[in-house]
Amino acid sequence: MFQLHPQLAADTVPVATWALCEVLLINDANYPWLVLVPARAGMRDLDDLAPEDQARATAEINRASKALKALFAPDKINVAALGNMVPQLHIHVIARFAHDPAWPQPVWGAVPASPYAPGEMDARVAVLRDAFEAA
Amino acid sequence: MFQLHPQLAADTVPVATWALCEVLLINDANYPWLVLVPARAGMRDLDDLAPEDQARATAEINRASKALKALFAPDKINVAALGNMVPQLHIHVIARFAHDPAWPQPVWGAVPASPYAPGEMDARVAVLRDAFEAA
Repeated sequence: MFQLHPQLAADTVPVATWALCEVLLINDANYPWLVLVPARAGMRDLDDLAPEDQARATAEINRASKALKALFAPDKINVAALGNMVPQLHIHVIARFAHDPAWPQPVWGAVPASPYAPGEMDARVAVLRDAFEAA
Repeated sequence: MFQLHPQLAADTVPVATWALCEVLLINDANYPWLVLVPARAGMRDLDDLAPEDQARATAEINRASKALKALFAPDKINVAALGNMVPQLHIHVIARFAHDPAWPQPVWGAVPASPYAPGEMDARVAVLRDAFEAA
């Protein structure tokens, strides 16, 4: 049975539940940073997913990417399934900007996370939910 | 018209041409590290690909991942489309090991590349081509 890894739960807030993935927002105001976690037990790599779930993952990465583009007009979208530290399959979808604190490096380990203020977090989750409805 | 970005050409050797992607091996013996480049002009992000090409990309990421698993039995596969420095859409598929020099960090910027010796490079390309036929 699928259970969200406690490290992912600790680092994020829930935004939406899609056909395959739990959609989470990383609590780091440095970047609009989503994590998509396929709600399937025992998955580690993208190629572990069943073919129909791979198609769902592709569609959901698209939906997340297009929502981030519509909301934030980023310079680049970064998509990555790494999982060297947290073994549960999770897919980062991150809006990147030429002026963000890690650019042009990847975000992992670049600078310490900058947690959202409570009101900022709620506002960001709200605009993301609206954008997902339109994406 | 599609032309491989010169930075990608400089950092890699060609391994195979698939339905969507040019499959390249990064010249870094620290990790078995493939790069898949969709042979479509003007693509930057995964969600820029047409739906049928997204399905091809998914299938080709699978094929690359399964070949790396069969050949090297890695601890983890890392898949990423970043492209902050090289704007042409390219997808990293990397076999990671708990004993590799960047573990558990991502590979980008972790340690300097360790170029293959000429014979090693040819041998690795040969075993990859064989594994792709079987994957």
